[in-house]
Amino acid sequence: MSKVAIIGAGRVAVNLAPALCGSGAQIVEVWSKSRASAEALAGRLGCRSSWGEVDRVTCDADIYVIAVRDDVLPDVVRRLHVGREQALMVHTAGSLPLSLFVEAGHERAGVFYPMQTFSKERQVDFSRVHFFIEASIPDDEAALQDLAFRLTGDAAFVHKSTAALRRRLHLAAVFACNFLNHCCTLSADILDEDGLPFSVMLPLVDETVAKLHELTPREAQTGPAVRRDANVTGLQKAMLAARPDLQEIYSMLTKSIQRYDKL
Amino acid sequence: MSKVAIIGAGRVAVNLAPALCGSGAQIVEVWSKSRASAEALAGRLGCRSSWGEVDRVTCDADIYVIAVRDDVLPDVVRRLHVGREQALMVHTAGSLPLSLFVEAGHERAGVFYPMQTFSKERQVDFSRVHFFIEASIPDDEAALQDLAFRLTGDAAFVHKSTAALRRRLHLAAVFACNFLNHCCTLSADILDEDGLPFSVMLPLVDETVAKLHELTPREAQTGPAVRRDANVTGLQKAMLAARPDLQEIYSMLTKSIQRYDKL
Repeated sequence: MSKVAIIGAGRVAVNLAPALCGSGAQIVEVWSKSRASAEALAGRLGCRSSWGEVDRVTCDADIYVIAVRDDVLPDVVRRLHVGREQALMVHTAGSLPLSLFVEAGHERAGVFYPMQTFSKERQVDFSRVHFFIEASIPDDEAALQDLAFRLTGDAAFVHKSTAALRRRLHLAAVFACNFLNHCCTLSADILDEDGLPFSVMLPLVDETVAKLHELTPREAQTGPAVRRDANVTGLQKAMLAARPDLQEIYSMLTKSIQRYDKL
Repeated sequence: MSKVAIIGAGRVAVNLAPALCGSGAQIVEVWSKSRASAEALAGRLGCRSSWGEVDRVTCDADIYVIAVRDDVLPDVVRRLHVGREQALMVHTAGSLPLSLFVEAGHERAGVFYPMQTFSKERQVDFSRVHFFIEASIPDDEAALQDLAFRLTGDAAFVHKSTAALRRRLHLAAVFACNFLNHCCTLSADILDEDGLPFSVMLPLVDETVAKLHELTPREAQTGPAVRRDANVTGLQKAMLAARPDLQEIYSMLTKSIQRYDKL
């Protein structure tokens, strides 16, 4: 069985590493810049830890799953090369190319992109995570598909990808996750002026998303914008006069809803 | 027991009327502009129907629950006055004032605002709908609170409101429902270019919303904007070059996420 090293102990790693462990993968070491984070995650997994400079990580793993910030990933990949030339190097990022491994001299490289939002406070259920897989060598692609299949238990969630497709998926995910979540941040901010907690909106948010399991988002749309109720949209825009940032977002999204409704 | 007439057979009425019926309210008649819609809903409820001009509706009800488009509501309210001066007139809208009943001569007026998104294709579970209640007379306010309590079965979902509070709730709901849903429309549009169905995003959307039951939206935020990953946000913005409408929304929401993260 392949020996896996986890590089990183952030949001992705603390969700992915225990799931890999639970699916039967042999995790031999966790590395993190921070000793406390490395030891905490390694403790959960019952494996070794290392910290500080990334080249202190074991040379003994077959697969290095690198789940670090996009902006430090190229440097981490470069520093991992010497002594680990035979290993499969894999990253989990949505928008970084496979080629950054090649540029660092790695021959066996892959992408293992779980299209999900990860927080430290919550353990993700990997049986419902779509994985998008790339690899420079067919055997490694098969190995990564197998790893993803063991996590999801469902071949329909394991996809062969390309860098271009993964970038577009990541962009679509930013709209469906980060921007969707931000609409709730803005809603919470409006409620906060009346001292109301965002929890009052949860039944509405839950129903809005439940509908998306039965209707397309365009079919599911309701509200003053799509019914072209200019009285209400005008009133609501005026209510945001003291918040030009929210007013601008309100106008733009209202116009966009109406544009899509016409298509 | 109060006799209830339902004015309208649109999204709100086809959800609310059967729920009222199921909670023990006595619905005597459904009116709709369209005969087919009136008869269809009345058939489900086992009550009379009327259609065409709204003043053809029965004069025999104690409560008229008016669930029509905001833009026709003032006219409907005016036409319902003669012969129904003693009845309680109630609307279900988020942003229209109670005063429009007074202007039409009605003394007994109320608002029965269910803060939820309604579609004809899906029956809403009213046990998780927050109701915001107003009335011109305290006895009617109590009667409407009782009606809402019978629908939800939980006093924590029944709220006394004011027009100002209800307007702000409606505005917050537009962000948390309509704008949130529109982010999914935009995501679906991006996926569509690769021939992918939006269902591939549902595990991500579900997890994003599940997190909101445990974290505030600001705590729950992830992605390139909040981690100030200028490489990815720059790349994603460039990917939308052929779609200036999406690019503008992308830039604006990215900036807004970063602004809230600094607060």
